Amino acid sequence: MSGNTFGKLFCVTTFGESHGPALGCIVDGCPPGLEIHAEDIQRELDRRRPGTSRYTTQRREPDQVQILSGVFEGKTTGTPIGLLIENTDQRSKDYSSIAQQVRPAHADYTYWQKYGVRDYRGGGRSSARETAMRVAAGAIAKKWLKQKYGILVRGYLSQLGPIKVQKLDWDQVEQNPFFCPDADRVEEMERYMQALIKEGNSIGARISLHASGVPAGLGEPVFDRLDADLACGLMSINAVKGVEIGAGFACVEQKGTEHRDEITPEDGFLSNNAGGILGGISSGQDIVAHIALKPTSSLRIPGRSIDRSGNAIEVVTKGRHDPCVGIRATPIAEAMMALVLMDHALRQRGQNGDVVPG
Amino acid sequence: MSGNTFGKLFCVTTFGESHGPALGCIVDGCPPGLEIHAEDIQRELDRRRPGTSRYTTQRREPDQVQILSGVFEGKTTGTPIGLLIENTDQRSKDYSSIAQQVRPAHADYTYWQKYGVRDYRGGGRSSARETAMRVAAGAIAKKWLKQKYGILVRGYLSQLGPIKVQKLDWDQVEQNPFFCPDADRVEEMERYMQALIKEGNSIGARISLHASGVPAGLGEPVFDRLDADLACGLMSINAVKGVEIGAGFACVEQKGTEHRDEITPEDGFLSNNAGGILGGISSGQDIVAHIALKPTSSLRIPGRSIDRSGNAIEVVTKGRHDPCVGIRATPIAEAMMALVLMDHALRQRGQNGDVVPG
Amino acid sequence: MSGNTFGKLFCVTTFGESHGPALGCIVDGCPPGLEIHAEDIQRELDRRRPGTSRYTTQRREPDQVQILSGVFEGKTTGTPIGLLIENTDQRSKDYSSIAQQVRPAHADYTYWQKYGVRDYRGGGRSSARETAMRVAAGAIAKKWLKQKYGILVRGYLSQLGPIKVQKLDWDQVEQNPFFCPDADRVEEMERYMQALIKEGNSIGARISLHASGVPAGLGEPVFDRLDADLACGLMSINAVKGVEIGAGFACVEQKGTEHRDEITPEDGFLSNNAGGILGGISSGQDIVAHIALKPTSSLRIPGRSIDRSGNAIEVVTKGRHDPCVGIRATPIAEAMMALVLMDHALRQRGQNGDVVPG
Amino acid sequence: MSGNTFGKLFCVTTFGESHGPALGCIVDGCPPGLEIHAEDIQRELDRRRPGTSRYTTQRREPDQVQILSGVFEGKTTGTPIGLLIENTDQRSKDYSSIAQQVRPAHADYTYWQKYGVRDYRGGGRSSARETAMRVAAGAIAKKWLKQKYGILVRGYLSQLGPIKVQKLDWDQVEQNPFFCPDADRVEEMERYMQALIKEGNSIGARISLHASGVPAGLGEPVFDRLDADLACGLMSINAVKGVEIGAGFACVEQKGTEHRDEITPEDGFLSNNAGGILGGISSGQDIVAHIALKPTSSLRIPGRSIDRSGNAIEVVTKGRHDPCVGIRATPIAEAMMALVLMDHALRQRGQNGDVVPG
Repeated sequence: MSGNTFGKLFCVTTFGESHGPALGCIVDGCPPGLEIHAEDIQRELDRRRPGTSRYTTQRREPDQVQILSGVFEGKTTGTPIGLLIENTDQRSKDYSSIAQQVRPAHADYTYWQKYGVRDYRGGGRSSARETAMRVAAGAIAKKWLKQKYGILVRGYLSQLGPIKVQKLDWDQVEQNPFFCPDADRVEEMERYMQALIKEGNSIGARISLHASGVPAGLGEPVFDRLDADLACGLMSINAVKGVEIGAGFACVEQKGTEHRDEITPEDGFLSNNAGGILGGISSGQDIVAHIALKPTSSLRIPGRSIDRSGNAIEVVTKGRHDPCVGIRATPIAEAMMALVLMDHALRQRGQNGDVVPG
Repeated sequence: MSGNTFGKLFCVTTFGESHGPALGCIVDGCPPGLEIHAEDIQRELDRRRPGTSRYTTQRREPDQVQILSGVFEGKTTGTPIGLLIENTDQRSKDYSSIAQQVRPAHADYTYWQKYGVRDYRGGGRSSARETAMRVAAGAIAKKWLKQKYGILVRGYLSQLGPIKVQKLDWDQVEQNPFFCPDADRVEEMERYMQALIKEGNSIGARISLHASGVPAGLGEPVFDRLDADLACGLMSINAVKGVEIGAGFACVEQKGTEHRDEITPEDGFLSNNAGGILGGISSGQDIVAHIALKPTSSLRIPGRSIDRSGNAIEVVTKGRHDPCVGIRATPIAEAMMALVLMDHALRQRGQNGDVVPG
Repeated sequence: MSGNTFGKLFCVTTFGESHGPALGCIVDGCPPGLEIHAEDIQRELDRRRPGTSRYTTQRREPDQVQILSGVFEGKTTGTPIGLLIENTDQRSKDYSSIAQQVRPAHADYTYWQKYGVRDYRGGGRSSARETAMRVAAGAIAKKWLKQKYGILVRGYLSQLGPIKVQKLDWDQVEQNPFFCPDADRVEEMERYMQALIKEGNSIGARISLHASGVPAGLGEPVFDRLDADLACGLMSINAVKGVEIGAGFACVEQKGTEHRDEITPEDGFLSNNAGGILGGISSGQDIVAHIALKPTSSLRIPGRSIDRSGNAIEVVTKGRHDPCVGIRATPIAEAMMALVLMDHALRQRGQNGDVVPG
Repeated sequence: MSGNTFGKLFCVTTFGESHGPALGCIVDGCPPGLEIHAEDIQRELDRRRPGTSRYTTQRREPDQVQILSGVFEGKTTGTPIGLLIENTDQRSKDYSSIAQQVRPAHADYTYWQKYGVRDYRGGGRSSARETAMRVAAGAIAKKWLKQKYGILVRGYLSQLGPIKVQKLDWDQVEQNPFFCPDADRVEEMERYMQALIKEGNSIGARISLHASGVPAGLGEPVFDRLDADLACGLMSINAVKGVEIGAGFACVEQKGTEHRDEITPEDGFLSNNAGGILGGISSGQDIVAHIALKPTSSLRIPGRSIDRSGNAIEVVTKGRHDPCVGIRATPIAEAMMALVLMDHALRQRGQNGDVVPG
């Protein structure tokens, strides 16, 4: 039970099922005085919204967010911010046929095991629709981080199945439906996705995240490390199976002389294998993380499984589904990174210690 | 500040610096009635202990653990268990020369930035010596998990720099100083390490973890997912830069038909790309995770850096250091996995729901 | 910041201001399988609702609760329950005149000091209106406690200003607007309140709480004691200035022979000075607590104060206010006791220890 | 299980039984740079120490505290502070006869019910000996509060059984074994205690607490109110059965005009019925609280009870016991108030809002 709250000082608690009346969240711990409007949040939600391209689920929801509390005369008051999105496109009939099915690679089986019941309408609580509220909460964190510290949290699709991006041009990221920072790869991605959709299959993806402007000193040294909390937040996103900080798994084959980021008085750190975190604490360099997202499990290609009584069945998914959940995951991952950074920024108290030049 | 506690119901709080009088921890939340002796804990500590082979630091500490509370007449009482290890080999003179240095890839810089002070004796709190208490606490979790559920948490070195293990023979893991499960690779590893030590360099490693016997239903669906908590716990280990669950980053290039673990009534799950976790909840399959550890940053090969006043310096590490921290990391990683599983086992309440055959 | 969540395993997070668009809460941690309908919650809300007698504020709100998630086909699913009450009677014009005033004994001054801003509409977040969501969440806890353990959580007004109730007849509690269990005192209370309203003044009150059917063993022995958590929950109710468990402050003058609750095999405990809690853990006797509520601070009789610029002003409250907040506090106090008991019930794991007859 | 940690940002976790090898605690979250020596802590421990007068238990322990971590070169480093007190006077033979007894008003019965086992040596974990570590941790909080804010946390015995103190002279508090601030009452108290000891009985007490110098703005408005957290912390002390803030239970009979603390520009608040807390947040006035402590349950006068098998027995306590636990409770209560204030001081972030003159 429980487990629907994220953060220690900037606490986000979400509720809502894919096909219930509404999704919502409470953002508790936002400092007072931040100018915030529904549009600030809506902008981020629109980046995540389904149905915006042919490569994502065709579910069409306006995902209109309402601010129910915590903001007075356009500014936060320090009291909890209640956010609400009503579900308007609830085609629950699509799902009635799967009520007794255990869909492979879905949470059907584990929810049954854990709770003895399961809301079978569109995955219920296990649907990625829950992440809308993370994006909404993350929008507040992003705005505060930017205003207070000039921190910019950004992400991009770094790999779509076999297609790896070759260059990072931030200006390109919002110019295509993939959050791809490499204009030269977009057409290839489009062709790949069209073939995949035709095939009725799905594919994994890799998302990369950068936070610039993060001051040194955020994070706690032992368990609540900045990297540990990022790993937790990012792994908690639906479909994520791996998290890397900085060099990540590449460091397995690195020698110490190669991995260590040397420092000179003139240029500061000469490399960033650490991903901006040393001993669990930010160093002032960009925070860099990468995540792996598994391919969607809802496929038109039949798969072997069982029903709730243990009988063999064949599962075929109809209805609207993302052939690559990674495509829409960039705003979600950015949101989780922003939530982690904001939480640690609030935990941080100004220390009057000596500071070495960065 | 804070951040030295891990777990929600099975809470481990550690204290202690590398060269202070002692290390210790409090294990709060252990159910009553578990038979536990200092030897049970000592056995795990001995697996992690430095100085046991020529491939690890030559610091020699008996690391003798004392149980100070929570155990009465050989059994846990339900009250907090206090554990203590006195530091006996505190060669603090080794470290005086580095008091003003910012050692590359160490936490020196970030501790200064965060706290304004730094215990420069052997890394102080940022030393991997802190992990001794995780192993001690993990030993209690391991024992309880085994007795209560038959859960077995085990790990092995799956890659040492460029050398990947080819086979997994659990009987071999404790037969060599590397926790290597492939007897055919041990000699190669020995040669590799000898060359590395001669060179004065260090190397990264990959550790793999399996937990068998885990019942379905452990974990919370949204933020406190079993995989998110594992990612947090494993990423909180010194030097870890990446965490994978099941297929991990390989899923980026997997198609849905390949990734989804199909189920048949006869054989249950036909594969385990999920790593035993679906929707954040255990499925009853083995929990599988992998971690990447960076190469040790303490090298005999000089590196460019700055001192606390920002002047250029050359850093050369003397004294005792592990050329590959990954070698001793297996018991630590097992301990963190055990702590996560135990916490979720205690959070789980028996649900009287229907259960599909696993 | 933060601080809007109550409970460790049964977590209630509330949001909403007195005159914002809506109040709401998220109940996280409710076990699956509990039959719950909006009416179950509405019944408790109606007990607390303003405007039901001439002795409480004349604000008229239907306080209609909606269940937005966590309940499927009439039963809880184990996922978070989102509850919402829209504010319909928002006469914010009543409050514009006080925007710069520091009303004595209100939170105006402290909110300004803490946040630098203040939602002056009807007290904003500091309004007792927030307690509606506690009652809503408490209704779920009450139902679960009753169904699972047969626990009955009940309260009554034990003192209204100088008028002390002389007998406890549970059947009378819901028969009058005061939650007074002594029918002989009701007329006196009515006369007292009429005189008070005429005078433009307010008065304090004492509420008493009983939980019957609580099994022995709930509570944690050191800091998270059942009595400590009750004290926390009850003191967190607006206007509460004192909390007693069992004999409470009377124990100051008790001798040990008088206070100790002796036990015989035939009759179990012979008295209940402990209030059902020993060493922080429930003993199986009724849990008994009492709280003191201060008189309402919103008075028609002028009071000396300052405005935000520090100038002397005279404060006179117009509009709708309870002359005795204690009158409506019984359902709120019951709710908080239910939340505490439910949280500890979920924390409790069956121990297979020997049990002495109670 | 668990429940041995207090505080959210300044976290104190204690361990240890009355007759185990040692007591200890971890203080996590102390800011760096605080000068702290074992003597600072020892001074407070000595105030609480048993055996210092004929009116307290004759158990003689030096209660010598050791600092094991978190302090380097005489100053805190921001890392967790490990504290240890070895038990030296463990007369466990005194307790063997009570191993099967349920002593009235002790935690014997409830521990059995909860855990199925019980450390019968001197009450084990339920012994007030545990509070030594609270005093130790509180000493650190007291020092920080004083240095950082000039906050002074002080307490005194305000009532010993029927004897109420008539005046508050802080200079007298440390001049007698009762922490009595009224020199004229000390002789009366001595006579009372001598008669009580002769009789073999015990008596309750009332302790009052003042914190001066507390800045306005500490506390969270809804659940984590400063008063709620004080109630929790104070009620968690062994033997406490009631907590009051400011006017406390007296407010039941107060009218609004009497209770509300009026404000003038010249004199600020004209009274302090609120006890320095409005809406859960400190107002800048002194924080005032009172607690009721029950009489000791260990009596030489026989009491009726049962043994673990449910047979009628007669319980007579031999050995060393305080005839009034309230006498030594003043330093413990001060420590808990200091822990709460420190936690909220660390949670508070400087708001740049307008401030009305206090």
